[in-house]
Amino acid sequence: MFSGANLPRVGTYNINVVLSAIQASDGTSRVEIAQQTGLTAQTVSVIVRRLIEQGIVEESGSRPSGAGKPRKALRINPAAAYAVGIHFDPLNVSIVVMDMNGQALARSHQEIPPGVDPEALIAEAARTALSLLSDLGIPRDRVLGVGAACPGPIDQAQGQVSSPRRRDRWSEVPIKRLLERHIGLAVTIDNDANAAAIGERWSGHGRNVSDFAFLYMGTGIGAGLFLSNHIYRGVSLNAGEFGHTVVEPNGPPCYCGNRGCLEAMCSPAAIVKEVHAELALGRASKLALMYEEGPALVDHRAICLAAAGYDPVALQVVNRVAEYLAGCAVTIANALDLELLIIGGRSITHVAEIYRAKMSEFLRSRPLARRSHIVRVAISDMADDGAALGAASLVLHAAYAPDTAHLTRV
Amino acid sequence: MFSGANLPRVGTYNINVVLSAIQASDGTSRVEIAQQTGLTAQTVSVIVRRLIEQGIVEESGSRPSGAGKPRKALRINPAAAYAVGIHFDPLNVSIVVMDMNGQALARSHQEIPPGVDPEALIAEAARTALSLLSDLGIPRDRVLGVGAACPGPIDQAQGQVSSPRRRDRWSEVPIKRLLERHIGLAVTIDNDANAAAIGERWSGHGRNVSDFAFLYMGTGIGAGLFLSNHIYRGVSLNAGEFGHTVVEPNGPPCYCGNRGCLEAMCSPAAIVKEVHAELALGRASKLALMYEEGPALVDHRAICLAAAGYDPVALQVVNRVAEYLAGCAVTIANALDLELLIIGGRSITHVAEIYRAKMSEFLRSRPLARRSHIVRVAISDMADDGAALGAASLVLHAAYAPDTAHLTRV
Repeated sequence: MFSGANLPRVGTYNINVVLSAIQASDGTSRVEIAQQTGLTAQTVSVIVRRLIEQGIVEESGSRPSGAGKPRKALRINPAAAYAVGIHFDPLNVSIVVMDMNGQALARSHQEIPPGVDPEALIAEAARTALSLLSDLGIPRDRVLGVGAACPGPIDQAQGQVSSPRRRDRWSEVPIKRLLERHIGLAVTIDNDANAAAIGERWSGHGRNVSDFAFLYMGTGIGAGLFLSNHIYRGVSLNAGEFGHTVVEPNGPPCYCGNRGCLEAMCSPAAIVKEVHAELALGRASKLALMYEEGPALVDHRAICLAAAGYDPVALQVVNRVAEYLAGCAVTIANALDLELLIIGGRSITHVAEIYRAKMSEFLRSRPLARRSHIVRVAISDMADDGAALGAASLVLHAAYAPDTAHLTRV
Repeated sequence: MFSGANLPRVGTYNINVVLSAIQASDGTSRVEIAQQTGLTAQTVSVIVRRLIEQGIVEESGSRPSGAGKPRKALRINPAAAYAVGIHFDPLNVSIVVMDMNGQALARSHQEIPPGVDPEALIAEAARTALSLLSDLGIPRDRVLGVGAACPGPIDQAQGQVSSPRRRDRWSEVPIKRLLERHIGLAVTIDNDANAAAIGERWSGHGRNVSDFAFLYMGTGIGAGLFLSNHIYRGVSLNAGEFGHTVVEPNGPPCYCGNRGCLEAMCSPAAIVKEVHAELALGRASKLALMYEEGPALVDHRAICLAAAGYDPVALQVVNRVAEYLAGCAVTIANALDLELLIIGGRSITHVAEIYRAKMSEFLRSRPLARRSHIVRVAISDMADDGAALGAASLVLHAAYAPDTAHLTRV
């Protein structure tokens, strides 16, 4: 059922529209904001004055404006507020402290020792985050909140991983509640792909793009969807699971119930298995010696490095993965008719350009709407930090992004 | 870039919110509308009074309300306005006249003779529509407009089919302009799948569903997407092309550039080809005699009828098609996390239940979020008229559906 819109909500919405125009620009003016947003000059003036009083926006220098008098340039005050982002990956915990401009001021990466207790890990992450804030001299009342990103699916109501991809130790751990207790700040939680998409929206390739997807490749593969200027999560908050698109109907069974899912063919574990099988056959490769020393040495990172160095075995497997990913990119393009596809996540390190090139090739020649427009592919600049930066962006996004749903929420 | 919201737009939006609450109910009251929408009792009263004055809403009978005085029941006045829907299919033209409640008052179906000129066909459709209106005694000023549905993709700006699926005679025919000239009424144009989805939203299975897809199976296969209570069309208005999901990587080439697309495996033409190949091998079937008389007699309709009667050859092919469709339903569920999938279109006649059952089976056992919720499958009740009824609904939807984008459009 639809909800009615009312005036106080319109006020908050318009503040966020103005903030968003300032944030998306590299210095803008009241006149430009009015032109871009359709708001009256007076409304923009009132909102900007309030944002300056609150210390969120600052006037810095001036912008030339043709014949008229120079206009004051408006920018977000990066020190107005801060957010902490924590990414709980199955193998690593990454933490960042971010300012209002989306810049990371401090980072921490820690490998997760095997068998560690989730609550101990959450407590340790909270301690690390608090010590990063203290080293930066940021008082706690300037921290808007903490964002946590985990491999999905997430149960937002419970603040935990709801139905785990694999029955791992994160299943039904109340991450949000535990983290709030240990860090003493409000926590927002989302899956890694959604967090990465929101991070790109806030300060990356998605800044001025109404419709894009972030294909996040970590231990698994999932997508965060930005449709019509809003994150799209679906009715049970589980949209974007393109990792479970069947790409090889006779492929191996996937834990989801399908056979030959994208994730089953393209995950780091699948790549390692494939390369090991080739090396066991004695194929010529720079990795052969390493494999003889101990197959475990030929891990996903070593394979991607070898592929980037044109090793024939590694490159053959990575190229096949690139074709599967490119096929899925075409499915996404046909389904959602996006402007942009962003790829990122830990498991594209060293091979991102191979994946991007193949996806672009397919996107130029296969989607039905290619004569109307070609879907662009961008590699996330956030590297391994993508989900942690995204997690911090969750906080800024929840506080400041214009959301038409807020106009009408009862 | 986001646009600001302003007060006149809020007013129009809230009128449509109230209208939508009345339309979705079978008799509602001012108090219930206020509860459902979060609007104040006073705002609802003012809006309802205006809608009654305009003849769009009527008070009829009363509703019990516990201890208090009975509340007046509000209903849409079905005779407040009418819309015409025209579906230009490659093989048929279907026309309906619809009232404000989404009821068809008159229909016409005509087969398209081979080689007919598109403009002559459009002129003939306009004449038929005007004579249906005249037979019903509906004056032209009570007709809100005409909706036209065509196989996509549609170029909305030009009002024509933009990049045809197959290079057919509809390519770049200015349908909207020609139809407006011949019928003398405003014309709204969209693809058949979007039109069918909007028809279901207006008066079918989608009435109170925030997130659903209509998988439309006509000559081709496409989907109309309703996400977060709004039709989702994508950046070039070509979203929903799930017919070009690869389901058989080694399958036959599709005109889109992929191999083994859903459409290439499951279209009526593919089904006919497959059954003919089986019959040519001499397989036992009720269709064998017909095939000997002349292969052209064994058309898609005859095959679907035979499958419904458990003919082994027809059923084997239809079952395989059902599996491909069910696999695609899982992809849609994983990608968009919907509440409901509606199937319809001319080519599911006689076999709809076979398709529905297989889709439901897959949707219970394969999507990643199946533990959170199971995606329901419904068969459109609109039968062959789905796209024509949907086309008429386009007009009502454009005039009366609450669209948060209208709150912020500059």
